[in-house]
Amino acid sequence: MDMDLNADVGEGFGPWKMGDDAALMEVLSSANIACGFHAGDPSIMARTLRMAQARQVDIGAHVGFPDLQGFGRRVMNIDLGELVHIVVYQLGALAGLARAAGVRMTHMSFHGALGNLAAADPALAGPLLQAVADFDRSLIISSSSSRAIEQAAADAGLQVATSFLADRAYDEQGLLVPRKLPNSVIKDEALVLQRVRQLLETGTVTTYTGQTLHMPVRSILVHGDTPGAVGLARLVRDAVLQAGGRIVPISVQMRQGLSGQ
Amino acid sequence: MDMDLNADVGEGFGPWKMGDDAALMEVLSSANIACGFHAGDPSIMARTLRMAQARQVDIGAHVGFPDLQGFGRRVMNIDLGELVHIVVYQLGALAGLARAAGVRMTHMSFHGALGNLAAADPALAGPLLQAVADFDRSLIISSSSSRAIEQAAADAGLQVATSFLADRAYDEQGLLVPRKLPNSVIKDEALVLQRVRQLLETGTVTTYTGQTLHMPVRSILVHGDTPGAVGLARLVRDAVLQAGGRIVPISVQMRQGLSGQ
Amino acid sequence: MDMDLNADVGEGFGPWKMGDDAALMEVLSSANIACGFHAGDPSIMARTLRMAQARQVDIGAHVGFPDLQGFGRRVMNIDLGELVHIVVYQLGALAGLARAAGVRMTHMSFHGALGNLAAADPALAGPLLQAVADFDRSLIISSSSSRAIEQAAADAGLQVATSFLADRAYDEQGLLVPRKLPNSVIKDEALVLQRVRQLLETGTVTTYTGQTLHMPVRSILVHGDTPGAVGLARLVRDAVLQAGGRIVPISVQMRQGLSGQ
Amino acid sequence: MDMDLNADVGEGFGPWKMGDDAALMEVLSSANIACGFHAGDPSIMARTLRMAQARQVDIGAHVGFPDLQGFGRRVMNIDLGELVHIVVYQLGALAGLARAAGVRMTHMSFHGALGNLAAADPALAGPLLQAVADFDRSLIISSSSSRAIEQAAADAGLQVATSFLADRAYDEQGLLVPRKLPNSVIKDEALVLQRVRQLLETGTVTTYTGQTLHMPVRSILVHGDTPGAVGLARLVRDAVLQAGGRIVPISVQMRQGLSGQ
Repeated sequence: MDMDLNADVGEGFGPWKMGDDAALMEVLSSANIACGFHAGDPSIMARTLRMAQARQVDIGAHVGFPDLQGFGRRVMNIDLGELVHIVVYQLGALAGLARAAGVRMTHMSFHGALGNLAAADPALAGPLLQAVADFDRSLIISSSSSRAIEQAAADAGLQVATSFLADRAYDEQGLLVPRKLPNSVIKDEALVLQRVRQLLETGTVTTYTGQTLHMPVRSILVHGDTPGAVGLARLVRDAVLQAGGRIVPISVQMRQGLSGQ
Repeated sequence: MDMDLNADVGEGFGPWKMGDDAALMEVLSSANIACGFHAGDPSIMARTLRMAQARQVDIGAHVGFPDLQGFGRRVMNIDLGELVHIVVYQLGALAGLARAAGVRMTHMSFHGALGNLAAADPALAGPLLQAVADFDRSLIISSSSSRAIEQAAADAGLQVATSFLADRAYDEQGLLVPRKLPNSVIKDEALVLQRVRQLLETGTVTTYTGQTLHMPVRSILVHGDTPGAVGLARLVRDAVLQAGGRIVPISVQMRQGLSGQ
Repeated sequence: MDMDLNADVGEGFGPWKMGDDAALMEVLSSANIACGFHAGDPSIMARTLRMAQARQVDIGAHVGFPDLQGFGRRVMNIDLGELVHIVVYQLGALAGLARAAGVRMTHMSFHGALGNLAAADPALAGPLLQAVADFDRSLIISSSSSRAIEQAAADAGLQVATSFLADRAYDEQGLLVPRKLPNSVIKDEALVLQRVRQLLETGTVTTYTGQTLHMPVRSILVHGDTPGAVGLARLVRDAVLQAGGRIVPISVQMRQGLSGQ
Repeated sequence: MDMDLNADVGEGFGPWKMGDDAALMEVLSSANIACGFHAGDPSIMARTLRMAQARQVDIGAHVGFPDLQGFGRRVMNIDLGELVHIVVYQLGALAGLARAAGVRMTHMSFHGALGNLAAADPALAGPLLQAVADFDRSLIISSSSSRAIEQAAADAGLQVATSFLADRAYDEQGLLVPRKLPNSVIKDEALVLQRVRQLLETGTVTTYTGQTLHMPVRSILVHGDTPGAVGLARLVRDAVLQAGGRIVPISVQMRQGLSGQ
């Protein structure tokens, strides 16, 4: 069993830091780098991708709403026609910095409110993923489980690597339960690890309402912006290894044609 | 004699417009598109490059300081290491939108205060042009005449297309006289056209202090953000045609190996 | 009959202009000045309020979402607790510039998407108007007709001056019909003037669905950002004068205790 | 001997934090709150001033260049006429939030690059302080020692409370040595405390070049954005108390007419 470990990184801005990217990079196989709209700036992006490059960690664009103050977590009622350009702009910016550094961008994912909207709405997922494909059909879409994203990616000829968010509650459709609901974010480290082990052993997740949901994934998302996050990331990595798995970047999994889903 | 006509376009932001890009596009052979830092936003960039694409006008990135309110005309004391990333970020963003639209970005130029600094300072021009080359060595540098830019481009293996700014006064080094000085911007249309004809016929420009300066150029910059600008652009184009020249995009001139300098 | 003529002004940003504020100021009795969040910047605000001051036009803060690119017209899902501070910040900024110029800010109004939300939702109008009252209980609320605003203002001890938007369609509750609907914005000048005359003569407006709605107002809003806007504003002013009315700023109307509603 | 302890607070932005304001507030007598241009946002400003209000800590506006990414530390070549409005806008915004919270803003200080420029240049300090006076002549100017600031304040009828930056090196004019120079920032805690004691006992500071400079101050600036900062702030406070002094906010010192300088 090959499993990717990915995290959202490069989420500082100007003088402000978020998370310990240097430590996280030691554990990850894929990095989702903020592109300056909800977090990040050109220097942080360049520094973060060089850290990833140095450890042969996959580089991806983490694309969000243009809202630094709200960290891309506030829904903005932006016309779809404009959203498409906002997404491509961010992809291009990170791809450009990667190219100048001599490395390739391999994947992309949607952040925060934009990610939640796209995962839940085929009318949004379709045009956004078509735009990603118009930019670069070889990009892998890293996403939490979503029919809308999977269908849109298939329509656009893009590959999806489903990612498991070990510390977030899921509903029966496999969508993330909104952060505002109680217990939607799981803070108990032991419980998070137990969910990882259940996924590795049975390929399932227990939903918010107690159902058992089959969830074929290629990747596990770990967080970097809370105290103890790096330690937890290491424990998740160890759980994969103990279950007999290997940590393999999604781009390598895709190249090998391994089918985790 | 082949001559490119270029202009800075896409200089609106959100609900605000600047210049009549649609009319200008009928006259130009190259368009320098603002990349969202001093002007422009993802939608305006996409709309502007599609206008250029429809008329086979060359598409270039117009790269500036991150200062919308100051329109990139205020010097900002940004570390060189950060400036390099700011430049590549903008190049990548426009190149990404162009790629998604199915067209190639062919050139780049520096805007406003960043352009003035780079043209005057080899210590700045060197790293900035090296960054452009690291991003894409096939990009043509569109610049007003500058030893610093020419040397830096040569060092980085980049081609330069020197552009003549018909309505701006030059000093003896061929650098633009700062806008704050009286008569640094030439508003008399007849005088602007006379300077264009002098350039076409003799390859020279008369400097701010009355000297005659040899100035080998491949391109003439016209402006779009003043009343009557489009009419003046048409007169400049007609002057080129009357002098027996042709309007040819810089990328085509470069491919043909024609040596205007 | 005393009637205020007000308009949204100072809606440029940095190098970008919107509307002919200088010409509009000759016609208005009240000016709603953008505060830098959806439009405007400190210099534009200062310049605009000095124009108003010179013509003894009332000065008010036009308060919107923090979204320059979207001109405050896109709904943003900002927590109410944060919105309250966003409103007060803008009030304070304009009040500060007014104070430094030696003039008083007399009123405030909500712009765009924020205005539409507040006018339709008592749960939003209540805390926002309480925040306005906490800042300055003497500020007059300039608003299109809205039960939510009127009730919230009464609860907070604030006075409301209802404004008639002559070129916008109303529903039966007296709320503005969303801009996205056809004919929600009335562009026919003759029709706009006819609606003004109906209001002046009968105190009523004909709704989007053809109903006759009583609408007691102290003010008429004119627009400045479309071609011919200033000419239309003059025609509206003339219509007031021809109907035997006077153009009187809302602050003066309120001081005189004249009751238009 | 009465001494104020002040610090720059509210320097987060959106999701990003800087420093432990809650702990610092326990030690301070005056707080300089960022106003949203170089750091801070409306919610952070409101939260920070309520913390100060709860502990009867003086509230002041910390005013900087409009450059969040650069944290106001990069010189921007902004016209003086515009800078004046930028300063008043920020003063008004914080004063407005303070007023809505039922507390008065008592002082202001300049941040970062703007502060360095104003302290060194009478042609800048003059108009900026005149603008502060036009806004509110009762505001106290909190500043590191500067002839330019002191003269400009006197001309504008404003009071200055000179602040001692215990961890920054001074030149012979009493100006701060630029951060770029080696040892311009003193990181050795014992050395910082020794400088505080020298100031308290002899009213002098030892300059960068080893001179002894007389420096009459009413306040000591402590920092909050480095590890151990709060602990150091407590040690500085204890040093004042051990020297027989009292911790007294500058506004109270000024009201009492105590002359520390």
